[in-house]
Amino acid sequence: MAGEDSAGREKAIKIGDRIEMKKQYLISPGPTPVPEEALLEMAKAIMHHRTPQFSSIFAECSAGLQELYKTSQPVLMLASSGTGAMEASIVNLFSPGETVLVVNAGKFGERWGKISETFGLKVEWLNVPWGQAVSPSAVAEALNRNPKIAAVLVQGSETSTTVAHPIMELAKLTHDKDTLIIVDGITSVGVVDMPMDGWGIDVLLTGSQKALMLPPGLAFIALSEKAWKKSKTVKQPKFYFDLARELKNQKEKTTAYTPAVSLICGLRKILEMLFAEGLENTYKRHDILARSVRAGTAALGLAPLAPDSPANSATGVFVPKGVDGGKLVKDLRDNYGVTFAGGQDDLKGKIIRIAHLGYFDTFDMITAISSIEMALAKHGHPVRMGEGVAAAQAVLNARYI
Amino acid sequence: MAGEDSAGREKAIKIGDRIEMKKQYLISPGPTPVPEEALLEMAKAIMHHRTPQFSSIFAECSAGLQELYKTSQPVLMLASSGTGAMEASIVNLFSPGETVLVVNAGKFGERWGKISETFGLKVEWLNVPWGQAVSPSAVAEALNRNPKIAAVLVQGSETSTTVAHPIMELAKLTHDKDTLIIVDGITSVGVVDMPMDGWGIDVLLTGSQKALMLPPGLAFIALSEKAWKKSKTVKQPKFYFDLARELKNQKEKTTAYTPAVSLICGLRKILEMLFAEGLENTYKRHDILARSVRAGTAALGLAPLAPDSPANSATGVFVPKGVDGGKLVKDLRDNYGVTFAGGQDDLKGKIIRIAHLGYFDTFDMITAISSIEMALAKHGHPVRMGEGVAAAQAVLNARYI
Repeated sequence: MAGEDSAGREKAIKIGDRIEMKKQYLISPGPTPVPEEALLEMAKAIMHHRTPQFSSIFAECSAGLQELYKTSQPVLMLASSGTGAMEASIVNLFSPGETVLVVNAGKFGERWGKISETFGLKVEWLNVPWGQAVSPSAVAEALNRNPKIAAVLVQGSETSTTVAHPIMELAKLTHDKDTLIIVDGITSVGVVDMPMDGWGIDVLLTGSQKALMLPPGLAFIALSEKAWKKSKTVKQPKFYFDLARELKNQKEKTTAYTPAVSLICGLRKILEMLFAEGLENTYKRHDILARSVRAGTAALGLAPLAPDSPANSATGVFVPKGVDGGKLVKDLRDNYGVTFAGGQDDLKGKIIRIAHLGYFDTFDMITAISSIEMALAKHGHPVRMGEGVAAAQAVLNARYI
Repeated sequence: MAGEDSAGREKAIKIGDRIEMKKQYLISPGPTPVPEEALLEMAKAIMHHRTPQFSSIFAECSAGLQELYKTSQPVLMLASSGTGAMEASIVNLFSPGETVLVVNAGKFGERWGKISETFGLKVEWLNVPWGQAVSPSAVAEALNRNPKIAAVLVQGSETSTTVAHPIMELAKLTHDKDTLIIVDGITSVGVVDMPMDGWGIDVLLTGSQKALMLPPGLAFIALSEKAWKKSKTVKQPKFYFDLARELKNQKEKTTAYTPAVSLICGLRKILEMLFAEGLENTYKRHDILARSVRAGTAALGLAPLAPDSPANSATGVFVPKGVDGGKLVKDLRDNYGVTFAGGQDDLKGKIIRIAHLGYFDTFDMITAISSIEMALAKHGHPVRMGEGVAAAQAVLNARYI
């Protein structure tokens, strides 16, 4: 328990000269905690993937994912992280030389642009200040100005800035055009309702390690009829991420290449848990947990990174002046045992991101806020103990009326 | 996740007409949470108990238990709950007709008396009001009054009232006499330092499901030389709990009857964890967690059940007038997902007992106090949110300086 466990996670806190046991709390926006129900499912003996037994599990997952996506289109499962599904979107839907509009509001918007450029696309960057959501009128204007734009590439929730983009409004802008709207829903699917068919989203993708409460290693992607049609015209080399080949296989309850068997077994359990909760209730839970963290951090005087369009996946807040955010996050992880995410690039050392997507409940949020209170005081910022917790509790009390 | 899992633990909270996922927190004084390191150890393939492989694990556990007990005597492992070890103390050490002094300060003191009477002993009851520790002078007086008293039977910590008895002082009273002192250390061993040889304790027993962070099913018992000597003169039928037979076997790294194999494998891991932390640090951790709960509940105006001699194993507090403690504990368990212990017998419905023995850390205590705050407010008691948490944090902050 002292020192580190086999995974390198420290299980002890050093107090002066002595060591005390500590527990680990993962409150970062991915990977997120995996429920023991899924862990135990994945710990069962591995099965072969070319068997009717696995095909039956696979088919259950396919059906469940369609229900989650609210789409009549197949939701394909890829053995990759979410970035693999982002690349799949690009290589299946665009030939070199085509133009895409990239909503660049953070690290993951930027990633859309980098992948597009890698595969020879022309990127029109729609730069949005970090912490803000893209405005539908800016997208509309860009589309009007350049009719060659073949697609809008955007995040449902930009995890680096904890902003939610207005996907429903953006989808309306491409609906009657040839333009596609491609949504990285990695920290949106399972967090907020994002009905693919109802909103007219052309590509919706996500990963396993966020609201789907699984370890990383699975990605999910669905294409609209319009997107599938366009994919047939695309000239772009692809093999592992060839979605037409996957579609052909997955319709037959199998995959083109070896699937991530145990993760898919875990996925079946997760989908069962989500449907038992009821998706609308899952979204309500995420909403109240998110609001509790916003209230708790506001009570501590921490300015929100995304005041106008905060995501329900995670809340980013600025650390107070005079506090080194990098040291704060490190101390919380290494001594308090609570792992948050810090800031990236320009925000490095300036923010702390508190997750509330996936397998989280009331007392995870209390742990988050109370640990931040304690660490802020230690790092020289005047905090009245319990003040943030009280504000979070005031929101969370509504769960128990 | 809605409804109950296979173990009957509800995994959902009902809010009006809807169901939301919830996590379960076990903050009762036994069983206590089992660390995943031990769970995984016990999930390994079961081994046969008459093998050198198991004997090696058994020997490691024996040595570790001696270190924990601070004794040169063998610490025997029994496949039973702690009550089995209480019975073993009686049937191995007393013939029918002998007199014992029972410190009756709660449910478990009372149990000493019941077991003694069952096996034909004469019980001299030393009744202590619930919530108070026995005074050494009262024991001294009883021993002087009745020289026939063959033993003092007492708890290290009386779990029903969360009182700590003054074992070191009591042991001094029997040291130069034939009288034995027999200590039920079920919620003391691993919580506070209780050096068996150093203090002159004649029998020290405990169970697996408390500070030893294991599931129930194992009990541990060690006898002083004085006790072993007396045991040879005792006329009392016994078979399963025949400690002389166990001693003979366990010296040979085996047991008289089938041992609880997987629990003993888990025990090896637990002892490894405790020694990595360092026993003195384990005791310090228990002390600070206990003080944080005392401070947190005091800040909420909850009167302590054991104001003068509180145990570091658990803290009992009275629920405020006008609040039904039974309903409060039930609501916390069924809706908030936080399981505490209520009161027994005369204290039924009047108290709540918050555990801090075993696999507990800072944020378990924050969860405990914050959930009580929220539930008290719901049950009509005026509570300022965050007030108890703040007081607990103020204590716990010392862990991170």
